[in-house]
Amino acid sequence: RDRERQGMAKNTNMRWRLPLVCLLWELAMIVLFGVFVRFGTEADAHWEEEKRDMNLTSDIENDFYFRYPSFQDVHVMIFVGFGFLMTFLKRYGFGAVGFNFLLAAFGIQWALLMQGWFHSFKDGKILIGVENLINADFCVGSVCIAFGAILGKTSPIQLLVMTLFQVTLFSVNEYILLNLLHVKDAGGSMTIHTFGAYFGLTVTRILYRPNLEQSKDKQGSVYHSDLFAMIGTLYLWMYWPSFNSAISDHGDAQHRSAINTYCSLAACVLTTMAFSSMLQKKGKLDMVHIQNATLAGGVAVGTSAEMMLTPYGSLIVGSISGIVSTLGYVYFTPFLESRLHIQDTCGIHNLHAMPGLIGGIVGAITAAAATEDVYGKEGFIKAFDFTGVYQTRTPSIQGGFQAAGIVVSLLMAFAGGAIVGGILKLPIWGDAAAENCFEDGIYWEVPEDEESDVYHMHNPDKPASP
Amino acid sequence: RDRERQGMAKNTNMRWRLPLVCLLWELAMIVLFGVFVRFGTEADAHWEEEKRDMNLTSDIENDFYFRYPSFQDVHVMIFVGFGFLMTFLKRYGFGAVGFNFLLAAFGIQWALLMQGWFHSFKDGKILIGVENLINADFCVGSVCIAFGAILGKTSPIQLLVMTLFQVTLFSVNEYILLNLLHVKDAGGSMTIHTFGAYFGLTVTRILYRPNLEQSKDKQGSVYHSDLFAMIGTLYLWMYWPSFNSAISDHGDAQHRSAINTYCSLAACVLTTMAFSSMLQKKGKLDMVHIQNATLAGGVAVGTSAEMMLTPYGSLIVGSISGIVSTLGYVYFTPFLESRLHIQDTCGIHNLHAMPGLIGGIVGAITAAAATEDVYGKEGFIKAFDFTGVYQTRTPSIQGGFQAAGIVVSLLMAFAGGAIVGGILKLPIWGDAAAENCFEDGIYWEVPEDEESDVYHMHNPDKPASP
Amino acid sequence: RDRERQGMAKNTNMRWRLPLVCLLWELAMIVLFGVFVRFGTEADAHWEEEKRDMNLTSDIENDFYFRYPSFQDVHVMIFVGFGFLMTFLKRYGFGAVGFNFLLAAFGIQWALLMQGWFHSFKDGKILIGVENLINADFCVGSVCIAFGAILGKTSPIQLLVMTLFQVTLFSVNEYILLNLLHVKDAGGSMTIHTFGAYFGLTVTRILYRPNLEQSKDKQGSVYHSDLFAMIGTLYLWMYWPSFNSAISDHGDAQHRSAINTYCSLAACVLTTMAFSSMLQKKGKLDMVHIQNATLAGGVAVGTSAEMMLTPYGSLIVGSISGIVSTLGYVYFTPFLESRLHIQDTCGIHNLHAMPGLIGGIVGAITAAAATEDVYGKEGFIKAFDFTGVYQTRTPSIQGGFQAAGIVVSLLMAFAGGAIVGGILKLPIWGDAAAENCFEDGIYWEVPEDEESDVYHMHNPDKPASP
Repeated sequence: RDRERQGMAKNTNMRWRLPLVCLLWELAMIVLFGVFVRFGTEADAHWEEEKRDMNLTSDIENDFYFRYPSFQDVHVMIFVGFGFLMTFLKRYGFGAVGFNFLLAAFGIQWALLMQGWFHSFKDGKILIGVENLINADFCVGSVCIAFGAILGKTSPIQLLVMTLFQVTLFSVNEYILLNLLHVKDAGGSMTIHTFGAYFGLTVTRILYRPNLEQSKDKQGSVYHSDLFAMIGTLYLWMYWPSFNSAISDHGDAQHRSAINTYCSLAACVLTTMAFSSMLQKKGKLDMVHIQNATLAGGVAVGTSAEMMLTPYGSLIVGSISGIVSTLGYVYFTPFLESRLHIQDTCGIHNLHAMPGLIGGIVGAITAAAATEDVYGKEGFIKAFDFTGVYQTRTPSIQGGFQAAGIVVSLLMAFAGGAIVGGILKLPIWGDAAAENCFEDGIYWEVPEDEESDVYHMHNPDKPASP
Repeated sequence: RDRERQGMAKNTNMRWRLPLVCLLWELAMIVLFGVFVRFGTEADAHWEEEKRDMNLTSDIENDFYFRYPSFQDVHVMIFVGFGFLMTFLKRYGFGAVGFNFLLAAFGIQWALLMQGWFHSFKDGKILIGVENLINADFCVGSVCIAFGAILGKTSPIQLLVMTLFQVTLFSVNEYILLNLLHVKDAGGSMTIHTFGAYFGLTVTRILYRPNLEQSKDKQGSVYHSDLFAMIGTLYLWMYWPSFNSAISDHGDAQHRSAINTYCSLAACVLTTMAFSSMLQKKGKLDMVHIQNATLAGGVAVGTSAEMMLTPYGSLIVGSISGIVSTLGYVYFTPFLESRLHIQDTCGIHNLHAMPGLIGGIVGAITAAAATEDVYGKEGFIKAFDFTGVYQTRTPSIQGGFQAAGIVVSLLMAFAGGAIVGGILKLPIWGDAAAENCFEDGIYWEVPEDEESDVYHMHNPDKPASP
Repeated sequence: RDRERQGMAKNTNMRWRLPLVCLLWELAMIVLFGVFVRFGTEADAHWEEEKRDMNLTSDIENDFYFRYPSFQDVHVMIFVGFGFLMTFLKRYGFGAVGFNFLLAAFGIQWALLMQGWFHSFKDGKILIGVENLINADFCVGSVCIAFGAILGKTSPIQLLVMTLFQVTLFSVNEYILLNLLHVKDAGGSMTIHTFGAYFGLTVTRILYRPNLEQSKDKQGSVYHSDLFAMIGTLYLWMYWPSFNSAISDHGDAQHRSAINTYCSLAACVLTTMAFSSMLQKKGKLDMVHIQNATLAGGVAVGTSAEMMLTPYGSLIVGSISGIVSTLGYVYFTPFLESRLHIQDTCGIHNLHAMPGLIGGIVGAITAAAATEDVYGKEGFIKAFDFTGVYQTRTPSIQGGFQAAGIVVSLLMAFAGGAIVGGILKLPIWGDAAAENCFEDGIYWEVPEDEESDVYHMHNPDKPASP
C-alpha cells in the first residue's frame, strides 16, 4: 500500500525503540523508587503510633478521607477526561486515548519523584501519601494539555521524551512559584494550564509541518467521534470542582473552591453556547466549542477558587473565559496556524493558554484585594499562609508575587518548550510523514475488516470498486 | 438542500435569539448572585472562628466531607446520566448531550437562587454550601426529565424558557411540600420525578405535533447509539444510591438510603429483563426497556429510602416498579400517543411518572407505618423531624401529609405544564418543522463528509454511486 | 433468514424460560431477604443510641463515610468497567453490557445472602451495611470475570445459573480462606481473580465448541467497539486503587492499599505497551493488550496492597504482571484454544488467572517477610489481625497459610467449574448454535435494518439500491 510505504519511508516502526524506552525507563523508576520512595506517616503501618503522637482520636483524621474522593475525580479527568476529549478526530481515537494513557502512566511515576524531591523529602526519603498522588496527576495534566497541541503528529516515543522533560520543568517551575515566590495556585491556572499550554504551543511551533494539509481530510470528526469526545468534556466539566479543591486546605478552603468552580463552569457553558451560535452564519452550534470552551471556566478560576472570589465573581470569570475561548477557536486558531505557524490540533491556546492567563490574573487581583474583614483574622493568615518569613506580606505584595508567577511560568514554558521541541525534532523518534498524521494505522493495529471501510471513508472521491 | 430549506421555512436560525437569551440571562444571574449569594459558614474563610463557636474539633465535621462524594455522583447523573441516556436516537446525539448540558448549566444557577430564597435566606443573603449545590442539581434533574418528553422536537431557546419556568415552579412546589406540609422526600419521588414527569408530559401534550410521523425514520436508534445510551443508563443506575442519600441526615439516614436504593435497583433489573423478554414474541430483550425501566427502582424508593423501608421492602418496590415501567413502554406509551396525543420521546411516563407516583405512595405508607419501636425513640423523632410545631404529629397524620404532597405535585405539574406549554407554543422560539425533528443538523454543525462514509462503511460490497 | 432458522433449530427463544427464572429467583430473594436481612447498626434508625453506647462523638464515625466513596468506585468497575470492557466485539455490545448488568444485579442480591450467612449473621439475622454492599460487588466481580471466558457463547439463562452457583461457591471459598485459614486478601487476588478466572476457564473448557470458527468473523472488533471497550478499561484502571482498598482497615491500611495499587498499575501500562509493540512484526500496538494487560497490575497486588509492599515493590509487581499478561495474549491464548480446547473470549487467563496467581504468591511472600520493625508493634498485629487464637502466628506461618489459600481457591475453581460446566451443558438453557455466537441478534432486538438505515438516514432523497 502507498500509505504504508510512505510511512516506512519515515520509518515509523516502533518495534525496538518504543519497548526499549518503556522498559529502560520503568527500570529506572523501580531503582529510583527503591532508593527514595517510602510511605508517608499516614499510609505507613506505624500510623497507630503516629495517631497517638499527634493526639488524633479517629482514623477519619487520616488525610486519605479528606482527599481520596477528590483524587479519584482528578484521576478520571486525566485518563478519561483528557483521553476521550481528544478522540474527536475520526481516525485517531486509539492514539488519543492510548497515548494519553501511556504518557500519563509514565508521567505520574516521574512526577512522584520530581515533586517528591522538592516537596516531600525527609531524611533522604520521599514520603508519599494521597496528596502526592493528586499532585502527580496534576503535573501530568500539564503534559496532557501539551499533548493536545501535537495530537496526531508525533510518535509515542516523542511523547514519552516530552513527558520526561516537561514533568521535570513543571516541578522546577512549581517549586519556584509555590516555595520561592510563595504563590497560591491550588487549581494550577499558572503551574498547570499556562505552563502546560505555552510549553505545548512552543513545541508544536518548533515541530511545524508545512505540508500538514496533506492529512487535512483526517483532521475532522465524524458523528460518533464527537460523541466520544463529549464523554471527555463532561467528565472534565463535572469533576473540575474536585480538581480545583483537591489540594486546598482542609475545611472551608476545599468547600469554597468547589463552589466557585461549580459557578464559574455553569456560567461558561452559557456564554460559550451564545458565542458559538452567534459566530456562525446560520447560528448553528459548533461541537468544537461545546467540547472545549465550556471548560475554560474551570481553568480561569484555578488560582482564585480557594480565595474569597465569591459566587458572583466566579460567574463573571466563567462568563468571560467562555467568550474568550470561543472567540479564540473562531479567530485565533486560524491566525496562529497561518501566521505564526503554530499548528494546535485541539486548540489548547483557547482552552488552556488564554484562560490560564486569565486565571493567573484573576488570582493576583483577588489576592491583592483580600482584607482581614472579608477573610477573618485567622482565615486571612491561613488562606495565604502568611506565617513564618511571610508574616509581613500584605495582600498587594502577594498580588505582585502572584503576577510574577505568571511571568515565570510563561518564561519557563517558552524556554523549556523550545529546548524540548528541538530535541523532538531529531529524526530518530519515528514520527510519521505529514500525509500520515492523524491516522491510527501508523502506530496501532486497526481492526482488519474495517480497512476497506476506512479506505472508502477517506477517499470519498475514489470509486468503491475498481 | 431540501432539508435545510424546509428548516428555514420555519426559521430555525438561532443566530441572534439564542445568544441574546443566553447572554441576557447570564447577566441577570451575575447581578442577582452579586446582590444575594454569599458563601455559607462552612465555605467561608471565617470557618475557623465558626468551628470554635460550634465546638467542632476537626475540619472533617465540615458538611463538605459528608456530602461532597454524593454531590459529585449526582452531578454525573445530571450531566452524563441524563445526557447520554438520551443519545439513543440515531441522529440526535449532539442535541441530547448538548442541550441537556445547556439547560442544566443554566438551571443550576437559577435553582441556587430560587431554592436559596426559600431555604437558605438569612439577613438578606443566600448562604450556599455543598447541600445547595446538590439541591440545585436535583431541581435541574426535574427539568432533564421533562426534556425527555420533548426531546428532538424543541429548539434550545424553548428549552431555556422551559427551564426558567420549571425551576421556578419546582422551587415553589418543593417549598410547599417540605416546609408547609412538612413532608419527607429526600430522593424526590414527588418533588423531582412526579412533578418533573407530569410537567413534561403536559408540555408535550400542548406542543402536540400531528405530523410527527414525518420524522419517524429518525425516531429509532442505531447499534452504537444504543451503546452510548447505556453509558447514561449505567451511571444513573450506579449512582442512584448517592442520589437518594445525598441530602439525608448525617449518619444512619444516608447509610440506609444508599442500601435501600441499591436493593431496589438490583431487583428492578431482574423484573425488567423478565417482562421485556416475556412481552416480545420471540422473547428477545428490548434495549429501550433495559435502558429505562431498570432505573424505575431508584425512582420508586425516592421518598422512602431514608425511612426504615428495610432491604426486602426495597426489593418488593423495585420489582414492582420494573414491571410497571416495562408494561408502560409496551402498552401505555402507544396508547398515550394515539389516544391522548401525548408524544413522549423517551417514555418518561414509564420511567419517572408512574414510578414517581409509586414512590410517593410507598413513602406515605412507610411513614404511616412508622413506630417508635422500629426507629427507636430518638431515631423516630429525627427521621421525621417531629420537633417544634410538628412535635405532636403521628405517623398516620404524616402519611396523610405525604399523600397530600403527591396531589400537590400533580396539580402544580399540570397547571404549570399547561401554562409553560402555552408559552412554548408561541411561534417565536424557532422550533423545527415536523419532518426535521430528531435531527441534529437543524441546530448543530454536523460533520460534513460523514454521509457518504457511513454508506460505504456498512455496505462495502455495494458500489458507492448508483 | 438462514441465520435465524438455525438459531431456532437450537431454540434460543427465551420468552418463557428467562422470565420464569428471573421472576422466580427474584421472588426467592424477596422471601429470603424478608426472613434474614436487616439493617446493620450503622444504617439502622437506632444509630443515635448506638453512637452513645459506642462513645462516638460524631456521625462522621459511621462506616458509611469511610467506605462509601470506594464503594461507588467499585460499583462503577463492576457495571461500567466489566460491562464496557467486553463491548470490544463488533456485534455483541448489547450482550456484553446487558448480560453483565443482569447477572451482576442478580448476583449482588444472592451474594448479600450467602456472604451474610457466613460473615454478618447475628441472632438469626443478616445485618448489612456499606461493607456488605462492597463485598457483594466483589463477589459478583468474580462472576463477571468468568463471564469473560464464555462471552458470546451462552444464553442469559446459563449466565444466571452460573451466577447462582458461582456466588455460592465463592462464598464458601472466601469463608475457608478468610475465616478458616485466616488469610489476608483485601483486593481478592485469590478469592476474586484466581477463583473467578479458573472457574470460568473450566466452565468454558467443558462447554467447548468445536465449530466455533463458524462465527470467527464476528469475534473481532471494529474501530468504535474498541473505543467503547476503552471506557471499560480506563474505569477499571482508574478505580482499581479503590477496589483494593475498599474493605481494608480504616486509616493507614486503606491509604496504603490505594498507593500500592496506583503504583503497580502505572508500571503495568509501560511494560504492556513495550511488549505489545515488541511482539508485533511492525511494532504496532495491539488494542487487545492495551485494553486488558494494563489492568494486570491491579490484580497482581490484590493481596499485598494493604501490606507494606512499598511503592517500589508495587512497581516491580506491576511491571512483571504487564509482561506476563501480554505474553499470555500473544502465546498462551492460542495454545489454550488449540491444544487444551479452552476458548477464552476475553483472555481472562491473561488478565485474571495468571496475575491472580502472581498476586497470591506476592501476598504470601510479603506476609512471610513481614517484621515488627517494618510494621511497628501495633501495626504488625493489626495488619495481619494476629489476635485471639491467631496471637501466636508468625509471619512465615502466615505466608504458608496464604499459599494454602491459593491452592484451595484453585481446587474450588476447578471442581466447581467442572460441576457447573456440566450443568450448563444440559440442552435446556437455550444457547445458540456455533454460527450464531457473538451475535446480539439472537437474544436482543437489534435496530432492524441498520445497514440500509444509515444509508437512508443520510441520503433521504437517494434511493437505497442503485
